Amino acid sequence: MIGFSSVAAFDAALASLPAPDRAARAAAAERQAQLTKPPGSLGRLEAIAIDLAGWQGRERPRIDRGRAVVFAGNHGVAARGVSAFPPEVTAQMVANFASGGAAINTLAAASGLELRVVPLDLDRPTADFTRGPAMDAAECLAALNAGAAVVEDGIDLLVLGEMGIGNSTAAAALCARSFGGSGAEWVGPGTGVDGDGLARKTAAVDAALARHAEAPRTPFETLRRVGGREIAAMAGAVVAARTARIAVVLDGFIGSAAIAPIAAAWPRIADHCIAGHVSAEPGHAKLLARLELDPLLALGMRLGEGSGAAVAAGVIRAALAAHDGMATFAEAGVAGG
Amino acid sequence: MIGFSSVAAFDAALASLPAPDRAARAAAAERQAQLTKPPGSLGRLEAIAIDLAGWQGRERPRIDRGRAVVFAGNHGVAARGVSAFPPEVTAQMVANFASGGAAINTLAAASGLELRVVPLDLDRPTADFTRGPAMDAAECLAALNAGAAVVEDGIDLLVLGEMGIGNSTAAAALCARSFGGSGAEWVGPGTGVDGDGLARKTAAVDAALARHAEAPRTPFETLRRVGGREIAAMAGAVVAARTARIAVVLDGFIGSAAIAPIAAAWPRIADHCIAGHVSAEPGHAKLLARLELDPLLALGMRLGEGSGAAVAAGVIRAALAAHDGMATFAEAGVAGG
Repeated sequence: MIGFSSVAAFDAALASLPAPDRAARAAAAERQAQLTKPPGSLGRLEAIAIDLAGWQGRERPRIDRGRAVVFAGNHGVAARGVSAFPPEVTAQMVANFASGGAAINTLAAASGLELRVVPLDLDRPTADFTRGPAMDAAECLAALNAGAAVVEDGIDLLVLGEMGIGNSTAAAALCARSFGGSGAEWVGPGTGVDGDGLARKTAAVDAALARHAEAPRTPFETLRRVGGREIAAMAGAVVAARTARIAVVLDGFIGSAAIAPIAAAWPRIADHCIAGHVSAEPGHAKLLARLELDPLLALGMRLGEGSGAAVAAGVIRAALAAHDGMATFAEAGVAGG
Repeated sequence: MIGFSSVAAFDAALASLPAPDRAARAAAAERQAQLTKPPGSLGRLEAIAIDLAGWQGRERPRIDRGRAVVFAGNHGVAARGVSAFPPEVTAQMVANFASGGAAINTLAAASGLELRVVPLDLDRPTADFTRGPAMDAAECLAALNAGAAVVEDGIDLLVLGEMGIGNSTAAAALCARSFGGSGAEWVGPGTGVDGDGLARKTAAVDAALARHAEAPRTPFETLRRVGGREIAAMAGAVVAARTARIAVVLDGFIGSAAIAPIAAAWPRIADHCIAGHVSAEPGHAKLLARLELDPLLALGMRLGEGSGAAVAAGVIRAALAAHDGMATFAEAGVAGG
């Protein structure tokens, strides 16, 4: 089990992000060139197979045990009227995940993923980050470790999702603090706030930026100050998965924003990440461009929960099925290889 | 079994294309509005579920038996050096399909589709359409019926693919003759022809347009003159599926071009079709725009065989899984419904 015993240990993990296995990547690329198809004709499917070969360290990567995780947290900033839904919906949706009735239950099953739901102190929302840090250091470290804890031995693909009323406001704050820009440049309708709600979101982000302007801009401090528990958990899971060389499928704006503070300092953090989709939230495409991630799907989804990433996992499975199952030109006796 | 006893019967089928079941569509849309998610937040997945509800005539559409079909044909125009591969590769790839080693074998299996391969007189290529019609009327009608024959009772989604050395040249000719434009506007590298090969493709399309300029522009005549057996078969399958109210997933440039001559006369032909993806072939995006189809995936694929459509079928399955399996706000006790 990978964990972070201290903030220094988290920083040390970031300073020693492993690279993919070059030999496995090369072997996978060589195999792709021999399969019965014109070179490159499977497009992105070929790149996915080669990337996963590098992270899994084998010419033919597999998803024997793919795991989707939904982290849930509550946010003090929700009291500022930034969401179309009341904060109690977070716990209600966690109950819905538990009883199998949410989108992620159906989409994870459709892609053959096991599902874990990790509620994080829902009865104890983070502090309102327009007035002070969302979390103290111990809380943030605990959230990072809650994320790392889902990276267990035997998992060969990790799909990350979240649920948390108010968390698209936190995501916008994370992006603005990590990559610059004002609230207006990163805020969007989220689950569907109206004009006044949108103005309140923008104001909350701008207030947070001002409140924390003088604070250190390390990944940990930004996650702690303007993030949330489920967001820090996703960041911890991404880092732990990298340490374990497990590829991660990111979901929407909030899941991608979880690594924005890390990417600002360590741009290679996203190397083992696949952007499952680009959501309808306007800031997401801009964020993915900053992360240098090309989204696999563009289906106009904007739900969170890991829903878009779970659908993308099905495409990733298809990519690996072709890579593993196709015959070579020599095996099939087809001309042109 | 749906078939076309004559050209007049084919034309009659086009003149009486059925519409979707409005009540089933409305019921599915009502259900989507009650599921535990912000309205519209599953984006394209919601639209797919509603569309399939309309075609299947039930509030909760299913894919109990999805079928992928690869039609294969050989083309006289291949002798003009329009492809990167020799014509014998068509039969070699059919053997590869039969032994399970091609991309479509793996991708159909990954999406839970049964696979049928329908080789069409491979030892008797169509005539070179730069000099005369590719097929006589009986040959073209037989190909349409070979396509219609795959539309069997019990199939609830049909994924159409093709294999045929030289058939991206035929596809370009079909597009140009159906929607206007010269060869240069519709021709692309296909499986990977070089500069000279591309020039030969363009010249072949322009020669075909000139040769058949005075011929009637009916769907049948265009398919017969500048199409091919596997292309006419896909057209026949699309029309037969429509008659049976079965949704169809189209693949790439060639599969989409199969309905171009029909769409020019009967624009609603594509209503029951989902564009599985937009391929890397330059003419495909332009063709989809003319067909008013928004591709589900954009993965840089350009293989044919139904490969992109088969991957898309997995996304369609996910859409139906969410539609069928999610709880309503009332069922889950979640606020906001």
